[in-house]
Amino acid sequence: MSAEFSFALNAIDGPARTGVISTPRGEIRTPAFMPVGTAGTVKAMLVDHVRATGADIVLGNTYHLMLRPTAERVASLGGLHKFMNWPHPILTDSGGFQVMSLSKLRKLTEEGVSFQSHIDGSKHMLTPERSIEIQCLLGSDIQMQLDECPAIPIEHDKARESMLLSVRWAERSKRAFEEKSQPGQALFGIVQGANYEDLRRESLDKLMEIGFPGYSIGGLAVGEGREEMFRVLEFTTPHMDGAKPRYLMGVGKPADIVGAVARGVDMFDCVAPTRSGRHGQAWTRAGAINIKNAQFSDDPEPLDPSSACPASRDYSKAYLHHLFRAGEYLGPMLLTWHNLHYYQELMAGMRAAIAAGGFSDFVAQFRAETGETIV
Amino acid sequence: MSAEFSFALNAIDGPARTGVISTPRGEIRTPAFMPVGTAGTVKAMLVDHVRATGADIVLGNTYHLMLRPTAERVASLGGLHKFMNWPHPILTDSGGFQVMSLSKLRKLTEEGVSFQSHIDGSKHMLTPERSIEIQCLLGSDIQMQLDECPAIPIEHDKARESMLLSVRWAERSKRAFEEKSQPGQALFGIVQGANYEDLRRESLDKLMEIGFPGYSIGGLAVGEGREEMFRVLEFTTPHMDGAKPRYLMGVGKPADIVGAVARGVDMFDCVAPTRSGRHGQAWTRAGAINIKNAQFSDDPEPLDPSSACPASRDYSKAYLHHLFRAGEYLGPMLLTWHNLHYYQELMAGMRAAIAAGGFSDFVAQFRAETGETIV
Repeated sequence: MSAEFSFALNAIDGPARTGVISTPRGEIRTPAFMPVGTAGTVKAMLVDHVRATGADIVLGNTYHLMLRPTAERVASLGGLHKFMNWPHPILTDSGGFQVMSLSKLRKLTEEGVSFQSHIDGSKHMLTPERSIEIQCLLGSDIQMQLDECPAIPIEHDKARESMLLSVRWAERSKRAFEEKSQPGQALFGIVQGANYEDLRRESLDKLMEIGFPGYSIGGLAVGEGREEMFRVLEFTTPHMDGAKPRYLMGVGKPADIVGAVARGVDMFDCVAPTRSGRHGQAWTRAGAINIKNAQFSDDPEPLDPSSACPASRDYSKAYLHHLFRAGEYLGPMLLTWHNLHYYQELMAGMRAAIAAGGFSDFVAQFRAETGETIV
Repeated sequence: MSAEFSFALNAIDGPARTGVISTPRGEIRTPAFMPVGTAGTVKAMLVDHVRATGADIVLGNTYHLMLRPTAERVASLGGLHKFMNWPHPILTDSGGFQVMSLSKLRKLTEEGVSFQSHIDGSKHMLTPERSIEIQCLLGSDIQMQLDECPAIPIEHDKARESMLLSVRWAERSKRAFEEKSQPGQALFGIVQGANYEDLRRESLDKLMEIGFPGYSIGGLAVGEGREEMFRVLEFTTPHMDGAKPRYLMGVGKPADIVGAVARGVDMFDCVAPTRSGRHGQAWTRAGAINIKNAQFSDDPEPLDPSSACPASRDYSKAYLHHLFRAGEYLGPMLLTWHNLHYYQELMAGMRAAIAAGGFSDFVAQFRAETGETIV
């Protein structure tokens, strides 16, 4: 393991890249999918099974953890890695996105965002400095600057105003990070600018001037649709520093991820495999199915008989159907496990295809198998 | 593995016994605790982990399975073992107890019991013959006769009337079982008679005349209290065939089980470890604790640092507390796992103590550690 945070590219194939991020807590193979462990647990999963699916890193949510059990409590218990029994890398978000989507009575100022907890109504203030302080208390290996993440569509002048605020917060975040962080931890800047090419370029230029070891692409997957998201990536990633990892935040479904890798993205997180698994949706090579549908009530076949994942291989669709119909814990447990394994297999397949110079064939096969038209 | 159902005692220590039940699907070490897998799953548990806790056998509930997904569907999918991916022995109840406790508009006659499903209101009739048919469709290794299980207190004449009905149903069950069962499967008769010594004796005499490879003690743990249950066992087990396994149905908490083993019982099932685990109660060597209590919010110690069970060893009480406060799946998953491991360790400890002739010391230590006064 490296004592420093670093990124090395192993191969490129068109805009698609494969490489390795090294951190003191382990390596992250890219393109990487990070399962979301919102409140210190990847929902309905044992942490050893998360690892066994092929995950090198998980994501923790600053907003949830700062409210419960609190960052100070996690720190006093030895940090988030020890708390959740995951010794491998952890990325945390800044908390800003979920403050805006989940909390009550939020108010955004130059200083930061004040809000009331959705859990108990308690009042909090999240500033760039406080977000970094929390992420350092958690012990996060890859941290995010506080940013504002407006929905699309948004008018150009408002998008620029918001983007410039995020840039100022990036500067403050970096200063706070330099004070509080441990060696080998990394802070990423977040590119904003909605779906405006000039604003994305301006955001990127300003962030690269400040200088970060990795850059996130924020403000996408906020309702703009897959085609529009891909269009934004196409005019954004070519201008990003090729030597630094590129993280597309909150994305996505398999076709989103494959398409974003094809457009030069290295890192992803999304609740899709875990949330949809809890609701009975299984991602398979042939696309997504809803296991609760009556057609599966007598289906003796597993989701994937050739899978290395017990959840995919050892239980019939009829059994999974029954578990969801009966409201049993085991249904979400098995389908989440299956979905995370599917996602990690997808990432491994992309890494291998890029390394072999056959990524366009991989994409063509993905289209053919899943029936996805926009990839 | 044996092609026959058989029971061999290895050691006795006072009334306590240890031995092995052999079935075509594997051996069951006694005293045995059978985790309850109501609807084809031990709730919130992966089946491999159920096995790893030391469980030789699990229980399935005929009432639940006959309603959903139906016994016929389970049979068409290859039987309950294959359905739930548990190749080891399975015991099923007759369905009668849960018809009386869960269903609507039930009516009991000499023929059987008619009822409406609590799930969809559909009408069903459970007779001794139908119960055996269902248990054979499920492929159960150890089956139970249909019986009536009245609550205590009950008047003597009503208790005798009910007990005699159960005896007549035992005869009908045995005839049906002889027609429908597979080699190596076993049917147990169920001793009834409430808390009346003469009725328990009469029930036992009549059942032994019919002849079964094992005998269950029914109608206990229905509100009579631990002392009264032990009193009934004390006048019942001495008259039971010592060469046959004795199964105390629906029991119980650790102190119930230790006390019942001390009174000659070999087999147990109970939802206590699984249900209480889902609700935040953890059984430990020092007794039960509620992990949701505020005192555990900062407790860095695991439930049992010396345990072989990951759930007991690898997560702090503070983390478990957090998971329950946050309503995370992983809380019930880990606490159920811990509790089942605790129960199986308790059974293993009793088996070893009986084999070594030190069971009274074991009981004394259990009393001292848990503070239980009635054991």
